[in-house]
Parts: sequence; structure tokens; C-alpha cells
Amino acid sequence: MNPFTDNPALAVGSLGERRLIAKLRDWLGAATAPAPFGIGDDCAVLPATGARRLLVTTDPVIYGRHFDDSLPPAAAAAKLLKRNLSDIAAMGGVPRSAVVSLALPRRVSIAWIRGFYRALGRCARAHGVTIAGGDIAESADMLGAFLTLLGEAAGPRVLTRRGSRAGDWIYVTGELGGSILGKHHRFVPRLPEGRWLAGRREVRCLMDVSDGLAKDLLELTPAGLRPALSAAALPVSRAARTLARRDGRSAIDHALSDGEDFELLFALAARAERAAFETAWLRRFQTPLTCIGQFVRAGDVPASAIPLQQYHGYEHLAGA
Amino acid sequence: MNPFTDNPALAVGSLGERRLIAKLRDWLGAATAPAPFGIGDDCAVLPATGARRLLVTTDPVIYGRHFDDSLPPAAAAAKLLKRNLSDIAAMGGVPRSAVVSLALPRRVSIAWIRGFYRALGRCARAHGVTIAGGDIAESADMLGAFLTLLGEAAGPRVLTRRGSRAGDWIYVTGELGGSILGKHHRFVPRLPEGRWLAGRREVRCLMDVSDGLAKDLLELTPAGLRPALSAAALPVSRAARTLARRDGRSAIDHALSDGEDFELLFALAARAERAAFETAWLRRFQTPLTCIGQFVRAGDVPASAIPLQQYHGYEHLAGA
Repeated sequence: MNPFTDNPALAVGSLGERRLIAKLRDWLGAATAPAPFGIGDDCAVLPATGARRLLVTTDPVIYGRHFDDSLPPAAAAAKLLKRNLSDIAAMGGVPRSAVVSLALPRRVSIAWIRGFYRALGRCARAHGVTIAGGDIAESADMLGAFLTLLGEAAGPRVLTRRGSRAGDWIYVTGELGGSILGKHHRFVPRLPEGRWLAGRREVRCLMDVSDGLAKDLLELTPAGLRPALSAAALPVSRAARTLARRDGRSAIDHALSDGEDFELLFALAARAERAAFETAWLRRFQTPLTCIGQFVRAGDVPASAIPLQQYHGYEHLAGA
Repeated sequence: MNPFTDNPALAVGSLGERRLIAKLRDWLGAATAPAPFGIGDDCAVLPATGARRLLVTTDPVIYGRHFDDSLPPAAAAAKLLKRNLSDIAAMGGVPRSAVVSLALPRRVSIAWIRGFYRALGRCARAHGVTIAGGDIAESADMLGAFLTLLGEAAGPRVLTRRGSRAGDWIYVTGELGGSILGKHHRFVPRLPEGRWLAGRREVRCLMDVSDGLAKDLLELTPAGLRPALSAAALPVSRAARTLARRDGRSAIDHALSDGEDFELLFALAARAERAAFETAWLRRFQTPLTCIGQFVRAGDVPASAIPLQQYHGYEHLAGA
């Protein structure tokens, strides 16, 4: 759906800020914060976290970049919240509250923004998230929604990207590649899985795969180590195979390089009992879990390992 | 300073995301969060708040709207953080951490973004704020920085916009109007003042003046009441008088309608000892404080009061 209208009467500019904010609150419904601390004051006021550490992440959706006319506003809104939820999942946290800063051209249609906020409210309620506040700034042309999501550590431990050592096993959830065919907005953020992983001492580090496995895996790789991945083990998605048939690139290439998988990627301690770990996972989750390789010392990469340096992932701002 | 360059070698696009993030961290200096929980993980990890309630606010600066070529990048960055700090001040809170989501065209010059982030770091350190994380999204044309600021309640009480009653006195800090001549980026957020006000039981409600007094005052006015303001009492700034000489509008009009004053506006209980309150203020602050009127019942507005409905303040999204 195209977000813009040439009919001023159908555009957000016909409402003005106060009426628009009242409507946003209506559309969000039960996802807004309760009075007296809801949308409309100078700050949102949230409950104290007690002893729990706070998690904060921020990601936008921008028209022409993260969504386009092929996507209904509801899908763009769900993508906005879920890509932030995926970051909370990637620390093993629990999401709590969000604020949304809109860059809004006057000629955006009321119908589009209604669809966006109703879906944002539904998605927030489904994940126990409160939309606690935000801001609307008029922009000339760019339509974007910049969401900041707050969460809490689920327990005493948060999982960062640091901590893997030589010999650790590399695991990934779900399947990889071809997200552009639909998963990029239909994915389910791996929140229960992330929370469970944070409670397992044998899990050393965790992140979500958003720029493609080949690129993101570098973030988990300490200096002096290399990821040795087995091509046969890689959970290549059906969508990656479909794209491969269309464009002549390999399905493995898509699985390694495509962005927006929103799966979890982590390292399991070398000494861990892998069979017991995998059994515990299977007892708890239906989400596929695959061991795709190991971290090894730079000189010890086997010839059979995937030559990762040939794959790039999604490069932001690349090629001026 | 114009943020854009036609020379690709001088543009952020020549860096790519990883090198740009490394540079942003350098430029922010001591304002970044300490390892292992600094910029670069899926979420920023912040200390638990204990029993203190959390405050969250979000405001952007967008090129062409909140700043233009006449402003150096350092001033745009200071404005970004300070307009969010002013919202924390307006609840009587203490600022703690921020995340920044950038919408960044490839052809923004490295020199511009360096000036912006160095100043953001300086301003953050000056206010005890940590820049804990963020995101960079490439945009086609729009340059904007969307900041979310977290703070804590300074004590058991936060001051919202609700709570004024008939007879309450209306106070404003500083002087009003003509902010566009420089104060819109040079202002000092009223953090100590807001915190002090939150500790005084006789203060009923508080907000900051950002869209012009005439419009913002409506936010503090309960149903059935009206603000009765005295024109003689209004602290009209020198800048408002300068603008009035230039454009033929009155200085009072500028003081009531101009945006971006970033002063504090509050109501003092009718039964409060005003002289004692003002003396306590003077002992503590050099910031001017003016009683500009009273909330009265709708039928009781004296003929001498400023006809506020004739003044509008800054209307976002108005006039499609």
C-alpha cells in the first residue's frame, strides 16, 4: 500500500498534531500505558526495574528501505516492533516498553497510519509490550518510524556477543536465506529461546542474525579464531533455494549473505554435553536448532570449511 | 555548515558501517558506555534502577526542520540532546543514558558527522549522560538523528502535566519568545530547577515550553478552568522584542507563540506561601522566575487577561 495521498482531506496534515496523537492512542488501544503516565506527557514514566538490569535497543523502519508499497502498513508495523524484539531476544531479555519517534510527511494518508498503529498495538499486546510514548516530527519526504524498545534481563545473566573460545560449537536457530520473499516481516522473534539460552551456563555468547550469517558471525569471532562451518550442515531455507533458481547464485550464498533472517546465533562451550543440550532444546522448543560448525584457531581451519570471506552479508552504507 | 559533500572520498559512504561505528565511538569518547556493555551489541545493557521509576523521552533533530546550514554540526548535536534533557527536567528527573538512531544519507560528509558526534559526546559528559548505543540506517535524502533519553525520578515523586486546580498560580522560568535568534540551540535545560520543583509539595504540575506558551499552557489547564495571564507580568525576551521590530508583530505575540523556549512552566497551589516559595527559589537559582497569572474558573476570566485564543504557538503538521 502506498503511504501517500494527493487528497489533503485524507492526509495526516488535515488532522494536526493534537488530533493525530489522540487517534494514535485510540489505534494502539490497550497497548498504551495506563493513565496518568501514558502518551502525552513530557516523558513516559515506567515502573522501577528493581534489581534487573535494563536493556535498550533502537531500530527504525524507513519507507523505501525497510518496506515499500508491496507491504501493507500492518506488516511494516509488525516488522518495526519485531526487529527490536529480536534484539532483546539476542540478549536473553524480556521486552517491556517502547517509544516511537515518527518522521511524518504531511501527505501520508490517515488510512495508512491507522493500519500501521493498529497493527503496532496488536503486535505490542501479543508480546506484552507497552507503547509508552513517542514523538511526531514533520519531515519533507521521508516516512520513518524510529522505535526504541526497553526490556529487562530475565535473570542475573545477559548474553553478549563476547565470550566464545577455541573449540566452541556454533549453533543457529531456524533456517537461513531468502527472507525478502516474506520472512523479513513474518518472522517470529525468538524471545523464549533467547531467554532459555541465557539461563544455560554452557552458552557463551548470543546474537541475532540480521545482516547475513557470514557477516554477523564475525561479531562472535574473537581475535585469533575463525569459524569453521560445514556447508552440508547449513539450514538453507526453501526461500533461499527459490531465489537461487531465479538468480543463478547458489542457495548457500543466499543462506550466508541475505539479511533479515532474525534467527539466533550462539556458541556452546567446547566441553558442553551437546547431546544433552540438544535434547533439552527439543523438549522445550519446536524451533529447529542446528550445529553448523566450530570456532577454531586461525591456522586450524579445515580445507572442507566454507570459505566465508567470499560471502559478504548486507553492507550498510557500502559503496559511496 | 552544509552536511553533504559531492566528493565520495569525504562522505560517510566511503567508510561503511563498521568503520563508521568505530569512529562514532572514538568521537563520543568518555560518553560511551564502558565495556563489555557499550555500543555494538544487540542491546545496550544499563544498570538496574532499583526503586526509582524510569523516565523515557524521544525527540529528533531533522535537517531542514530543526537545523539548517546556518548551524554548525556541534550546535545541532547539542540541540538534540538538550531538547530531550528538557523533557527530563520537565518531570523533575535525572538523565542517565541515551541511544541514537541515525537516518544517514551516504553523501553526508565525514567532517559533519565528526563535528556532530564530538559535540554530542561533550554535551553528554557535561550532563552525566552515557551514549549507550544506537543504530545507523541509510536513507535516501533525509538526515536525522532520533535520540531516546532515559532518566530516573529524582525522588518518590515525578511531576506530570496534571494536577492544577482553580486558584493555582502559574509560573514560568527564564524569558519567552524569539528563540530562533539563537536560544533554540544555546539554551540550558532546566534540570536542577525541575528536580527542585519535584521536591516541593506545593508545585502541582510541570512541563517545558516547547511549542509556545499559549499552546503549551492548554496542556496544564484542566477542564472547566482557564489561564488568566497578565500581559504586564510576561517575561518577554530581548529576542522577542528584536523580532517584533523586524516583522511588525508584537513582542507579546512572539513571547506567547514562538516555539523552542525550553523553559519550565508550572502551577503552584493556591494556598501556597508564594513569598516563601520565591525566596527559596532565589536562594537556590539565578534563573529568573515569574508568576504570570492564575488558573480561574471558565466564567471568571477578568477582562484584563491576555486573550490567549488569539495566539497559537507552533502547530505541528498544520495546514495540509
